[in-house]
Amino acid sequence: RISWISDIIVVVSPENIETMKTIVEKYGHKKVTVVKGGITRHRSIFNGLKVFAESEFSKYLLQKPEVVVIHDAVRPFVEEDILLEVVMAAKEHGAAGAICPLVSTVIAASADGCLDHSLERARYRASEMPQAFLFDVIYQAYQQCTDYDLDYGTECLHLALKYSNVKAKLVEGTADLWKVTYKRDLYAAESIIKDNLSQQICVITGVQEDAVQVGFLLHESLKSQVKVEVIPLSLCKNDNHLQNMFSGGCYNFIYMHDKQSAMQETQLLVDMLEKSNITFSYPVMLILVHLNSSEDISFSTGMEELTSIKKFAKEVKIKNIWVYGLLIHYK
Amino acid sequence: RISWISDIIVVVSPENIETMKTIVEKYGHKKVTVVKGGITRHRSIFNGLKVFAESEFSKYLLQKPEVVVIHDAVRPFVEEDILLEVVMAAKEHGAAGAICPLVSTVIAASADGCLDHSLERARYRASEMPQAFLFDVIYQAYQQCTDYDLDYGTECLHLALKYSNVKAKLVEGTADLWKVTYKRDLYAAESIIKDNLSQQICVITGVQEDAVQVGFLLHESLKSQVKVEVIPLSLCKNDNHLQNMFSGGCYNFIYMHDKQSAMQETQLLVDMLEKSNITFSYPVMLILVHLNSSEDISFSTGMEELTSIKKFAKEVKIKNIWVYGLLIHYK
Repeated sequence: RISWISDIIVVVSPENIETMKTIVEKYGHKKVTVVKGGITRHRSIFNGLKVFAESEFSKYLLQKPEVVVIHDAVRPFVEEDILLEVVMAAKEHGAAGAICPLVSTVIAASADGCLDHSLERARYRASEMPQAFLFDVIYQAYQQCTDYDLDYGTECLHLALKYSNVKAKLVEGTADLWKVTYKRDLYAAESIIKDNLSQQICVITGVQEDAVQVGFLLHESLKSQVKVEVIPLSLCKNDNHLQNMFSGGCYNFIYMHDKQSAMQETQLLVDMLEKSNITFSYPVMLILVHLNSSEDISFSTGMEELTSIKKFAKEVKIKNIWVYGLLIHYK
Repeated sequence: RISWISDIIVVVSPENIETMKTIVEKYGHKKVTVVKGGITRHRSIFNGLKVFAESEFSKYLLQKPEVVVIHDAVRPFVEEDILLEVVMAAKEHGAAGAICPLVSTVIAASADGCLDHSLERARYRASEMPQAFLFDVIYQAYQQCTDYDLDYGTECLHLALKYSNVKAKLVEGTADLWKVTYKRDLYAAESIIKDNLSQQICVITGVQEDAVQVGFLLHESLKSQVKVEVIPLSLCKNDNHLQNMFSGGCYNFIYMHDKQSAMQETQLLVDMLEKSNITFSYPVMLILVHLNSSEDISFSTGMEELTSIKKFAKEVKIKNIWVYGLLIHYK
């Protein structure tokens, strides 16, 4: 996803290596090398770094980078700009890391479980990820680490300071960099993903006047809440309007028509969505709206149409495309 | 809700006092006194404590308690057992507070925005709420506070240590005591509430054999996931089966019947739910399941029944009771 990152090392516990390799292959991640983790955080990171430096890992040996970014999978919402910021700061200072304000006051406990002292909250920060280092700075630090460091330490910036004498530059991170730790954090993460996915809607209209008109009205009523684009179906087939929606992070599509059967067009849209690869990351919504103004349609005809959409929806759901049908009768 | 708490002081910013008083009245909170907050955390807490001690607040002056608990509204999930634990520890030690493990490493920044040092995570804790104090310990501490303390301090345990020389006992809190701070935390809080509400289901069955049978099968299929009670409707009217469900924290009710019209029974259940006061805290679900095995029912009769349930549901929703109708035809 980010062009200036040349290699990605994913460090995984031994029992999950095969699963991870399957995922990497399935999603076609070309830059990724999977490496076996250690029994502690620092031992795992050290294993990851060795891939760039030690001949015992020669099977994988990759070109040593100038700067290495260390990140953890429990912080899934990392944006390119914060990555760039820590990398540039690491180039200048030797080490850099994202920080966030402390939410609660931090206190030290005495051995008997009583308050020893409390820290002035404004002077301290929570150390988050990503962190970046000149490769030699962090690698030399790990080489000099004691077993105690490797077993009980938690902070890479601390190792850079202790063993390479490099004072890391601290970079203000976003609130979304928090560590997904408790069950409730999974719900919070889900809400952030849903928020992101619901920022944009693309309305595709058939050539018929009513569909165009309703598409226009939908745009008017939604535009204050979300980004809405209205594209005639005819433009979807040939030029890059739809491609722009895909690359712009749009995951919601409404196809508005008044044709008796729109299976051909629906299939075309599904094919284009599938080819775009956006369905790799998140599910894509496709809502088929059939505007029907004919008076003589029977209840059972309507039910048949919805049933066939339901069948079609079931088929394409495995492609991570969620199809919904809406049949609107009007006079 | 907790019998051994004699008074509750709610400290509110001046612009929200009227809203808070309306809420207190609406929900019939008898122990609550609303007090105007200050411009900082410590000034607000001090205002709350003064209600027990200073004659200038004589309009409210309440009997001085032996122990006072300090809590904040951003931690909505506080259980009676942790309250009791901090209160008992405060009685013994003079002060006590809930703590949680640190999720991220804490670091100190130097003036130029670089790492000064990092704290060994295992030695420190996040200080959470609730905290409890012997009233005189914390009140004397606040009386001796400097303006700097009142304006920039964040930690009551620190004041008790500094001015009353009391080392607070630290009590391990639950993960649910975290501080609702970011938008994502609202989603997390919602998920915890939903989790709590979906722990129990009460199935109420009519006297007819099919309803009893389906109630039994529902019990069998759900019991591995949630707590399910099946109660015949006849028992709901007179004895305390349903009352036990209410006081046990059940918010989900299914009424299973095969009567042509069950409005009378439905109204009875809604009345009992309303009288129970459980609808004050959270919405109550009532799902009406009509089992219909007669062959000659028309589609429009079914629609009429569901329409009348929809109308009824709309009426009782303002009582915080959410009614749903399910019509099952079978042979």
